[in-house]
Amino acid sequence: MADDGVTVKYFLPESELPKAWYNIQADLPQPLPPILHPGTKQPITPDDLAPLFPMELIKQEVSTERYIEIPEEVREIYRRWRPSPLYRARALEKALGTPAKIYYKYEGVSPVGSHKPNTAVPQVYYNKQAGVKKVTTETGAGQWGGALAFAGSMFDVEVEIYQVKVSYETKPYRRLAMETYGAKCYPSPSDRTEAGKKILAEDPNSPGSLGIAISEAVEACVKQGAKYCLGSVLNHVLMHQTVIGEEAMKQMAMAGAYPDVIVGCTGGGSNFGGIVFPFLGQRFRKEAPKPFRVVAVEPSACPSLTRGKYAYDFGDTVGLTPLIKSHTLGHDFMPPSVHAGGLRYHGMAALVSHLKELNEIEAIAVGQKECFEAGVLFGRTEGILPAPEANHAVRGAIIEALKCKETGEEKTILFGLCGHGFLDLPAYDKYNSGTLEPDATLSEDALAAALAKLPSV
Amino acid sequence: MADDGVTVKYFLPESELPKAWYNIQADLPQPLPPILHPGTKQPITPDDLAPLFPMELIKQEVSTERYIEIPEEVREIYRRWRPSPLYRARALEKALGTPAKIYYKYEGVSPVGSHKPNTAVPQVYYNKQAGVKKVTTETGAGQWGGALAFAGSMFDVEVEIYQVKVSYETKPYRRLAMETYGAKCYPSPSDRTEAGKKILAEDPNSPGSLGIAISEAVEACVKQGAKYCLGSVLNHVLMHQTVIGEEAMKQMAMAGAYPDVIVGCTGGGSNFGGIVFPFLGQRFRKEAPKPFRVVAVEPSACPSLTRGKYAYDFGDTVGLTPLIKSHTLGHDFMPPSVHAGGLRYHGMAALVSHLKELNEIEAIAVGQKECFEAGVLFGRTEGILPAPEANHAVRGAIIEALKCKETGEEKTILFGLCGHGFLDLPAYDKYNSGTLEPDATLSEDALAAALAKLPSV
Repeated sequence: MADDGVTVKYFLPESELPKAWYNIQADLPQPLPPILHPGTKQPITPDDLAPLFPMELIKQEVSTERYIEIPEEVREIYRRWRPSPLYRARALEKALGTPAKIYYKYEGVSPVGSHKPNTAVPQVYYNKQAGVKKVTTETGAGQWGGALAFAGSMFDVEVEIYQVKVSYETKPYRRLAMETYGAKCYPSPSDRTEAGKKILAEDPNSPGSLGIAISEAVEACVKQGAKYCLGSVLNHVLMHQTVIGEEAMKQMAMAGAYPDVIVGCTGGGSNFGGIVFPFLGQRFRKEAPKPFRVVAVEPSACPSLTRGKYAYDFGDTVGLTPLIKSHTLGHDFMPPSVHAGGLRYHGMAALVSHLKELNEIEAIAVGQKECFEAGVLFGRTEGILPAPEANHAVRGAIIEALKCKETGEEKTILFGLCGHGFLDLPAYDKYNSGTLEPDATLSEDALAAALAKLPSV
Repeated sequence: MADDGVTVKYFLPESELPKAWYNIQADLPQPLPPILHPGTKQPITPDDLAPLFPMELIKQEVSTERYIEIPEEVREIYRRWRPSPLYRARALEKALGTPAKIYYKYEGVSPVGSHKPNTAVPQVYYNKQAGVKKVTTETGAGQWGGALAFAGSMFDVEVEIYQVKVSYETKPYRRLAMETYGAKCYPSPSDRTEAGKKILAEDPNSPGSLGIAISEAVEACVKQGAKYCLGSVLNHVLMHQTVIGEEAMKQMAMAGAYPDVIVGCTGGGSNFGGIVFPFLGQRFRKEAPKPFRVVAVEPSACPSLTRGKYAYDFGDTVGLTPLIKSHTLGHDFMPPSVHAGGLRYHGMAALVSHLKELNEIEAIAVGQKECFEAGVLFGRTEGILPAPEANHAVRGAIIEALKCKETGEEKTILFGLCGHGFLDLPAYDKYNSGTLEPDATLSEDALAAALAKLPSV
């Protein structure tokens, strides 16, 4: 075969940039359970959310319109790097010796190297339109914080970021990017909020967690009359990411292909939802040309979808946020320190959990070592060194491709490569030198203890 | 104006990927002075170079054919990220309040984030074709080493890299990328070569330099029966980079524009030659639609073009390489440690120096602080944080744009943005926190001392 091992890029002209986000709530077989007020335990109203979000985003959160137009000002920024490339990973296929056809949609071409600006830009845009001067947020490894800092600099909106302390201290590069874009970044837990002070009083050496940083960012927002931005989990966030899947669908059509399996990594669920939802929409509307499976890949160290309980829980550690029904490990679960910091969250997006409960998607948990092994193979064949989070999707795709090698099936696999790993190279160094931390497995006892603290609804 | 401040991307379909490199030697008003043998001081023959390079690259080095076909196997790899985007920097223009139209060609979309793979891929390809199993090279900050490691992994050729020790120790990220791609990387000066041992005997704490690392890589190549790759300076290297300018010319045409000024940063000259040569070729063939200026921007700490002597000199510190006539600060000049490690080289490409002598191009030297100032403004308007090397081009373009603001001229400025700064964020941190090292200015005495050691020809 002349093209054996030759990786191919499918190239979408700028005129094909999506004009609207796809809202899967329009097509769900059953509606989402409502979000509840943390005090009354009753469904929240738009007014309850108004201290946190501008009204346009609140409307998007609960909308059941199938398509929501992307404002031209947002598309102008998207166009700086979108449409993003889709590749047929022939070099990886050849290295695996698989008959499977592997495609990946690459979001590392954005200015901050991940999919996060797809939602950071509209979130800041709608805040700017509402007259907001400042937004607050949390970040783990810093992918989300960097994206929001970038978006803030594009629309001249102030950005205040609470970064999980262990990342703030040990992985300074993304913080330096946030600061260079002009954002303020504080290690969390901090003494800037009551939530942070409470955690520090209990444990002055707390390494922090996304849940704690969310508590601080929400409190800081309300106190300062700012607004709050979240990088994943919420319906509108996942919807903004559907530009990924909408583009991928067109690019797969260019390649004359349609996936048998779609694979994405899941932390809060936004990159996963972004690539998967437009395809699931086709299934729900009976427009999909064939059946396909969807596989969510999460770290075994933080296995919300595979081992969490489907229940109402807080999004943050202190308990300031509304209650969302989703797969959770418990809001004060402290995930072990893994390099895929972006997947280190106790909960899951309500939409992703709902689809799991409806058996529309599957989920698997994988160890961190097998993910780096996959990432290094990917780098040496496809040339791109993926972020540790993205390595979970690479690993998931390889698992599917190796199944095909065994059965001889020529399945078409599509996966989301949500970002590059330039700022995660020390983690690769640990893998290369054999000093990667051993895989942490959550014990049954620890899980039971964390789940015992779920709020009663 | 509806589009005021809206940065625009000019998008070239993959079918427009150049099929041939442009060789400026075909169109030079006067031929290049010959390269001399370091022993005989006579023009070198292809056989003299055969221990270092495969014959195809030696032929390219001296060719006067106008176009040299890019092998399909190289274009297959190029296509993973090429054509690269060209942008109209309207957001930057607006921030500057300039009537100038600023365009930039962005090479940071490559897998290693710089223009270097444009030549690393063909260099490894021609070596592979010649049956070579291993190549050696040097690198400073690691842009080149990372690119060659990437190319080595694409063609399954072993790569051994000597990295300037101060970068090896203080900026580990790019080394970790090289290692993840499977290359071996050693701090230079090392005790693996006689050249390294000699330097270490004189100064056990030598921080190293590109010149020393070249000595080691050349010696290691010859000793091991490997071949040697150079990331800049040589004619064939600059020629491989002309894909940048060829694409840019088509993209400028799409924008209905032609530059009045072209700006590039210069260390060894490859990124500069890459964007500039196709335009200069038009000038030499009397095909340029209008006159234009060309400005090379170099660091004032290492000002070869603006303050060096145009003379025959070695490419390396120890004196193993052929003698090239170019602007040099002296082969054992030790440039002060600036963050733009890729511009920290005592010499300049023969072609760039020749064009400077023929008054076809201008050169300016700028300080590092003004470059970071330019880079931060660029990041906060255009969204991309440039590499410190690229900041020199940004600064040069801003200088031209501010001149237009003064005169009211609506000039068209094109500059090369050769890479992103994800792995250089600690340098931005120093700038942000006001702790950037003060600009180093080369004293007349130090320059005279370095130039006194030029070989007599």
